[in-house]
Amino acid sequence: MDIGFIGLGSMGHAIVENMLKAGHRVRVWNRTSERAQPLVSLGAEIVDTPAAAFAGEAVFSMLADDAAVADVIDAALLEQAPRDLVHVNMATVSVALAEAMAREHAARGIHYVAAPVMGRPDVAAAGKLTIITAGPAEAVNRVQPIFDVIGQKTCRIGSLPQHASVIKLAANFALASAIETLGEAASLLAGHGVAMTDYLDVITASVFPGPVYAGYGKLIAERRYEPAMFKARLGLKDVRLALAAAEASSTPMPLGSLLRDNLLEVMARGEGEKDFAVLGEVAARRAGR
Amino acid sequence: MDIGFIGLGSMGHAIVENMLKAGHRVRVWNRTSERAQPLVSLGAEIVDTPAAAFAGEAVFSMLADDAAVADVIDAALLEQAPRDLVHVNMATVSVALAEAMAREHAARGIHYVAAPVMGRPDVAAAGKLTIITAGPAEAVNRVQPIFDVIGQKTCRIGSLPQHASVIKLAANFALASAIETLGEAASLLAGHGVAMTDYLDVITASVFPGPVYAGYGKLIAERRYEPAMFKARLGLKDVRLALAAAEASSTPMPLGSLLRDNLLEVMARGEGEKDFAVLGEVAARRAGR
Amino acid sequence: MDIGFIGLGSMGHAIVENMLKAGHRVRVWNRTSERAQPLVSLGAEIVDTPAAAFAGEAVFSMLADDAAVADVIDAALLEQAPRDLVHVNMATVSVALAEAMAREHAARGIHYVAAPVMGRPDVAAAGKLTIITAGPAEAVNRVQPIFDVIGQKTCRIGSLPQHASVIKLAANFALASAIETLGEAASLLAGHGVAMTDYLDVITASVFPGPVYAGYGKLIAERRYEPAMFKARLGLKDVRLALAAAEASSTPMPLGSLLRDNLLEVMARGEGEKDFAVLGEVAARRAGR
Amino acid sequence: MDIGFIGLGSMGHAIVENMLKAGHRVRVWNRTSERAQPLVSLGAEIVDTPAAAFAGEAVFSMLADDAAVADVIDAALLEQAPRDLVHVNMATVSVALAEAMAREHAARGIHYVAAPVMGRPDVAAAGKLTIITAGPAEAVNRVQPIFDVIGQKTCRIGSLPQHASVIKLAANFALASAIETLGEAASLLAGHGVAMTDYLDVITASVFPGPVYAGYGKLIAERRYEPAMFKARLGLKDVRLALAAAEASSTPMPLGSLLRDNLLEVMARGEGEKDFAVLGEVAARRAGR
Repeated sequence: MDIGFIGLGSMGHAIVENMLKAGHRVRVWNRTSERAQPLVSLGAEIVDTPAAAFAGEAVFSMLADDAAVADVIDAALLEQAPRDLVHVNMATVSVALAEAMAREHAARGIHYVAAPVMGRPDVAAAGKLTIITAGPAEAVNRVQPIFDVIGQKTCRIGSLPQHASVIKLAANFALASAIETLGEAASLLAGHGVAMTDYLDVITASVFPGPVYAGYGKLIAERRYEPAMFKARLGLKDVRLALAAAEASSTPMPLGSLLRDNLLEVMARGEGEKDFAVLGEVAARRAGR
Repeated sequence: MDIGFIGLGSMGHAIVENMLKAGHRVRVWNRTSERAQPLVSLGAEIVDTPAAAFAGEAVFSMLADDAAVADVIDAALLEQAPRDLVHVNMATVSVALAEAMAREHAARGIHYVAAPVMGRPDVAAAGKLTIITAGPAEAVNRVQPIFDVIGQKTCRIGSLPQHASVIKLAANFALASAIETLGEAASLLAGHGVAMTDYLDVITASVFPGPVYAGYGKLIAERRYEPAMFKARLGLKDVRLALAAAEASSTPMPLGSLLRDNLLEVMARGEGEKDFAVLGEVAARRAGR
Repeated sequence: MDIGFIGLGSMGHAIVENMLKAGHRVRVWNRTSERAQPLVSLGAEIVDTPAAAFAGEAVFSMLADDAAVADVIDAALLEQAPRDLVHVNMATVSVALAEAMAREHAARGIHYVAAPVMGRPDVAAAGKLTIITAGPAEAVNRVQPIFDVIGQKTCRIGSLPQHASVIKLAANFALASAIETLGEAASLLAGHGVAMTDYLDVITASVFPGPVYAGYGKLIAERRYEPAMFKARLGLKDVRLALAAAEASSTPMPLGSLLRDNLLEVMARGEGEKDFAVLGEVAARRAGR
Repeated sequence: MDIGFIGLGSMGHAIVENMLKAGHRVRVWNRTSERAQPLVSLGAEIVDTPAAAFAGEAVFSMLADDAAVADVIDAALLEQAPRDLVHVNMATVSVALAEAMAREHAARGIHYVAAPVMGRPDVAAAGKLTIITAGPAEAVNRVQPIFDVIGQKTCRIGSLPQHASVIKLAANFALASAIETLGEAASLLAGHGVAMTDYLDVITASVFPGPVYAGYGKLIAERRYEPAMFKARLGLKDVRLALAAAEASSTPMPLGSLLRDNLLEVMARGEGEKDFAVLGEVAARRAGR
């Protein structure tokens, strides 16, 4: 396929590599073009403007947050984009922005598909992302071959793009909850001189297999929060978006509030660039350890 | 081996079955002896007193809570028990009781081994329990063949029995946290008209494989809390014990407190006999759903 | 003085009455002019536009929230207003809006004074408001005679208008906390069959004199939440603004979060138009009472 | 009257002084008799045993906590006490202990009156305590003249002594809530550079008159937590008792839980001997200040 790609952070970079390896033609744009250079040897074509990426059969974007999305994908860009283009937004954005984007794309005859993903850069590099996609069925069908190349599984959840946002935010909320759980458990164990590794052996062998409890548990056991695989600052951003989405339907989320407060403490302590696992340090500090 | 077994609730029953099937001789005692009858055809010998079970090479007990343990395993029983007997306590008890039991057994030359387990009755029946054991190494070695019969994995975590309690309580705390997380997520999703099953597809395929998120998530999605596989009332008991253990070392566990408050609401609403998943109903009710 | 007044809700109405009684000339504007009619007999002059009120020596505004303020006091209005006019904004607005308003007024040579007040309509009618004012000293001096007529005490807290917002929001946060406290205490007392009135006698005679504990305590004791003197919906608005102001400086406010969640439950239950005291009903419901 | 008095901490000491000044005969007992010496010059008679104090027309006790009460006022003491004696317990004890004490006294024909008080030692010295009393009306009538000497107001709340405990615990819960409120407000204000004293001026002049907001607010504004007038450790004790009383009737108290967690942090940080106001430091620390 002839694809545009906007946003070459570590996630975008890994995704584009897999697109190229699968033989697709990819025009890439990034705010700072040096990020794009290493992809040229794999066949990527660097373009100078987002508009040049907004062409071909489909354009994918993977930008940092609502502000970046709103800034790059503006009305002017949409106005000049070809009718019938499919735009796949892979960023984790607010429910409100997802709704607004869907509306604005539709008004101009552009297909808007939301496709936030589960998985960090290493998972993206391995082509093992789980893709949460929502949008018009026909548009999703057209980009499904690309999803097959970059992910291990595509979860299609209907035609409303904002529903993908809700699921992604609820998933990251669950991630944050698990980390908070591990942090408080670690403090309980430490208070009785029990090794966190023994605890992790037990729970990962029984109720909690999978990468989250083992992986974040290890970081907390070692109190090692750098380098960050997923920054606490970005974790807070997603918890905020989940709470905002909940508030829009008057839904109390007390555990969400607890996470927000602990992550604000992380920010206040200047630890926002550390790994999300640093939530464990908040618990440790409160217990005087 | 020649084994005694005290406490034939659904867990104890399933465990004894596996002991008998593996060819061990088991003398069983239960407060109400009818519970023991079905095991006779498999070879169990019913005894009339706990003292008669406290004999042979080892005695296992699986009683409901601290009160039941303290009531049955009293000083008189220990006084008349044979020196060098190994007592394996499989109940989830408080850290304080575990310490007291270890002391009182040691004072009489009886070996005390803690062995709380991960897994509900269906897991016990399949011989797939995860056993968390702590106690004198020599004593644990002697009963390891039995652990191999009733469980899929034994996690040995040192010589202090109370450490097994701490780990078990921290594991059940994590279980409760996951259920609360699913409950709040369900309310968030419902507020936006997103299907809980779509959410579960995403997270169980990516970050949260394993039985907890899929299983409890399904119960919450269906708002079906009966019959209970693990009663909310017992979940509250364990959260309380975790908080008590934390308090003993001045450890704040705000998520633990949140769980306790929500489970108190469950009790106040007369839902204590329902499945632990009923935590999801607390979240739903607060969101007016 | 020659005064304009914008916004004739129950608070504004009571304030203007006191201005008129003290002999000041007041031009009043309200979105729906019927609200203004009763003031004519006291000497008020009804004007057709906000611009007509934005004249004379000073203009006061008492609008519902950020949206109403931003809607009425827009750039066009400020452009046509006379230089050197003093605008006194009595609404409880966000810190961000207070900063923006100060900047925009200053850019046009208009003096911006923040003056949110403590006190409900009955207190306003009695001329007993406590006025929290911040702004350029000279401008505050000019309107001090008006403050003396409508309030019992003016607290001057410096030259930055947003500081008045912070104090007002922190005060309303304290109010909400006191109500939550009373609600949880009421549930504790009810669980033991103790009369709330006995409790209120004790605390109002000792540690908690003043209108809040006695007044809200009575409403909670009687579980009577209508008619609302201060609506729960507006209480939530202020808690939100306090949390937003806190977040701007990475300040966790866990009690603030708890209040927000309980007030979201109030909204979800359709009780937003009831008195702020309805927080007590959230506690009662959770305790199954 | 002929009175016995047990427990001469700073509260007991101040109370006995007022009893003596009013002309009553007081036999005093304290675990360490040096505490009693200064009272001899005012007319107190030092006795060697609690039993010698448990005589005359009435005996008052003011001991530190449940453990001290249960230790001193044991079955042996009650057995030898004269029938028809009135025992007034002024300590803040658990609801469970109040019930047990009432039962054990009644079984021996001794009248048990609960009379916890509001007020710290300075208030006790001034004879301005607020007395929360519950017990058989006739017994309370007999000691009312003493209450009139040591307090400014007696709140009689019926015949069940445990009801006085519930009210006292709910009052101290409200005290803790107010301190937490002030602590969080202080962090919010500090984040915006607003003076805490300005805030206190506003709220004490309007909604929150009385000693609590002004007094604790001042300590928090100055971040001065020593010397302690009421120790955080004792504050935690009372919050725990309130939560235990709530739990006995399945009553969630989320604000109570929040206070408990923050006070556990205080303990973990080695600040338990500091003033209750140190809750403000927990908030400040979390905000990185």
